[in-house]
Amino acid sequence: LNKKRAFELGPEVTFTDDPSALVSGDVDIVVELMGGLDTAKALMLDAFAAGKHVVTANKALLAEHGAELFELAAQKGVGLYYEASVCGGIPIVQALKESLASNRIENLTGILNGTANYILSEMTTSEVDFDTALRQAQEQGFAEADPTLDIEGMDTAHKLVILIRLAFGLDYPLEKLQVQGISRVEPQDIQFAREFGYRIKLLAQVRDVDGKIEAGVYPTLVKYTYLLARVGGAYNAVRLEGNAVGPVFFHGLGAGGLPTGSAVMADVMALARDSAAPNNTGFLDKRLPPADIMDPDNGRCKHYVRLTVKDRPGVLAIIGKILGDRDISLAQVVQKGNPVNGIVPVVFITHEALVSNLLKAIREIDAQPFLAAPTVHYRILA
Amino acid sequence: LNKKRAFELGPEVTFTDDPSALVSGDVDIVVELMGGLDTAKALMLDAFAAGKHVVTANKALLAEHGAELFELAAQKGVGLYYEASVCGGIPIVQALKESLASNRIENLTGILNGTANYILSEMTTSEVDFDTALRQAQEQGFAEADPTLDIEGMDTAHKLVILIRLAFGLDYPLEKLQVQGISRVEPQDIQFAREFGYRIKLLAQVRDVDGKIEAGVYPTLVKYTYLLARVGGAYNAVRLEGNAVGPVFFHGLGAGGLPTGSAVMADVMALARDSAAPNNTGFLDKRLPPADIMDPDNGRCKHYVRLTVKDRPGVLAIIGKILGDRDISLAQVVQKGNPVNGIVPVVFITHEALVSNLLKAIREIDAQPFLAAPTVHYRILA
Repeated sequence: LNKKRAFELGPEVTFTDDPSALVSGDVDIVVELMGGLDTAKALMLDAFAAGKHVVTANKALLAEHGAELFELAAQKGVGLYYEASVCGGIPIVQALKESLASNRIENLTGILNGTANYILSEMTTSEVDFDTALRQAQEQGFAEADPTLDIEGMDTAHKLVILIRLAFGLDYPLEKLQVQGISRVEPQDIQFAREFGYRIKLLAQVRDVDGKIEAGVYPTLVKYTYLLARVGGAYNAVRLEGNAVGPVFFHGLGAGGLPTGSAVMADVMALARDSAAPNNTGFLDKRLPPADIMDPDNGRCKHYVRLTVKDRPGVLAIIGKILGDRDISLAQVVQKGNPVNGIVPVVFITHEALVSNLLKAIREIDAQPFLAAPTVHYRILA
Repeated sequence: LNKKRAFELGPEVTFTDDPSALVSGDVDIVVELMGGLDTAKALMLDAFAAGKHVVTANKALLAEHGAELFELAAQKGVGLYYEASVCGGIPIVQALKESLASNRIENLTGILNGTANYILSEMTTSEVDFDTALRQAQEQGFAEADPTLDIEGMDTAHKLVILIRLAFGLDYPLEKLQVQGISRVEPQDIQFAREFGYRIKLLAQVRDVDGKIEAGVYPTLVKYTYLLARVGGAYNAVRLEGNAVGPVFFHGLGAGGLPTGSAVMADVMALARDSAAPNNTGFLDKRLPPADIMDPDNGRCKHYVRLTVKDRPGVLAIIGKILGDRDISLAQVVQKGNPVNGIVPVVFITHEALVSNLLKAIREIDAQPFLAAPTVHYRILA
């Protein structure tokens, strides 16, 4: 209540530490920007019960309890608008709900977390390690004191679940999503990727594979010529393909008070217009059906693999045989520099291969006596 | 009526060569995709008079007669929706009308014509001349038999006038816009630009300079690291800055049946929802006030200048003095290669300078006896 604020509000503005006071008052739209799960959810339930619209930026709550909340909002005929929950000021929610509504979306790839992108960009351009880049991000205000949600990919996962609902009209439960963060990305992987012509980005990906939904969040190699590879600093971006519109790419600031405010105000203005018949999850108003989930290990892509091996004869032959037995063929191999303590990195890019085959091959390789450290593996964006 | 079509429609679909038949029938929304001015305008006027909504992709008509048409639509309380008129499937119209409506837009830069961008991209990557690139574009279906509107910048100008209305809520008459096309861009300019680290793009630009609107369409040098420089082939892109959202960048296919269809259907679906209170030009429903136009010659930017001079002593000193007298200082100068028939190109990049000063300096330089051909000049994007 007594927090020092950077702005001054007129006497008509009341501060309260009791969220339920918002709902009982003469209020048309409740704007929830507290974050967190329980208090925010309780506030929304109160708001719906009182017939009030809600605007929120709360991606975690929508990812965890969105299905229930959207159903309740629909039953009460009120709006639950959430442009600010994904990519801040980039109008991706309205684009999917309305502008691209006549398309069947075929796939969507996003850089959805500015903190993770800032860290990976710094590791790439300033050639610092993860801890240094994280500390810089914290000093510059691009990372929170506890950056876990951002760097371990969970914030990206929240947003991906929301985007899957919008793009495919399907519910993909958060707990079923494969999520891998960036905290173990090493400078040498960024460097090797660059030598092969790639940048490492934390990507959220989803695509429709013959009616099944393949999705995941992973650090991924992106060819340097792609627009997604050029997304620097704390920026966010979404690339999608629609069956009519073809590829569309959006880029902008994904966080911060003003970009978030831009999105929140868009929702408030839309509700001022739509108030009588709000448009929540798109053109569907019933509970979204569950996605038919494809096991991501059954996906196919190119792979980046870095082995740390003892420098002795015959190693490459054994690795080659293990890979060949799993139908994995190599596109590029690099072994560079002199061994340090008899240990050397061997890095390769595969042709397209089944993820499960590659994971099995890596398990087999990691069991070999000449392995000096666990093998590192990243997907490559098609 | 008997045109062979790539698709088959059911017997419930009636073909007519009398547009007014559309209006008298049991039709809610008239979709105008004929192009051209007079017949299309007459159809819209008939539709408005009959209380029917209109969806159109007709950028020329909206640019020329938009002020009148939007006023009529507002008087009749019907919708005039036009997502497809600018950048095909990229949802820039709805983004400006709604998603970014809480922003003051500070500036907007667009690659709005796929034909021109395809030609410039081919000239850059395949190092062919303009005529060859145009012929390729025509063979590939990226350019029409008469490409004048596209290559001379008028199509880009039509779209810019529409975007200025959306972004600034102001009417900038088409005939007051400075427009320069790409038909005189030479391979050597593309090559020199590249050596300086730039790509040449046909840009539509507008910005708010202390309440005055500075706008124009010119071939412009774009630093190769910018996303706008990476827009290849027949793609379109828009970059804008809002006072809250910061910079936002949109990229996608600007033409073609399916991307256009995606935008048209978005409008049809929006009108199905908005029908009772359509949202035409944004949140304003009265006639847009005229823009306070800034003479583009009073603008400031960096410049690319290529002189063709007779190779004799003292030339650079004279050029340097003419520029210096006009407060123009040079950032980079290149004079390369041996003279051909005693003639040599001298190319320079200036620091930021007043456009009118540069134009005066060029006129003075072109009057010098050592000039062998008129001087070539392009703006550089800030």
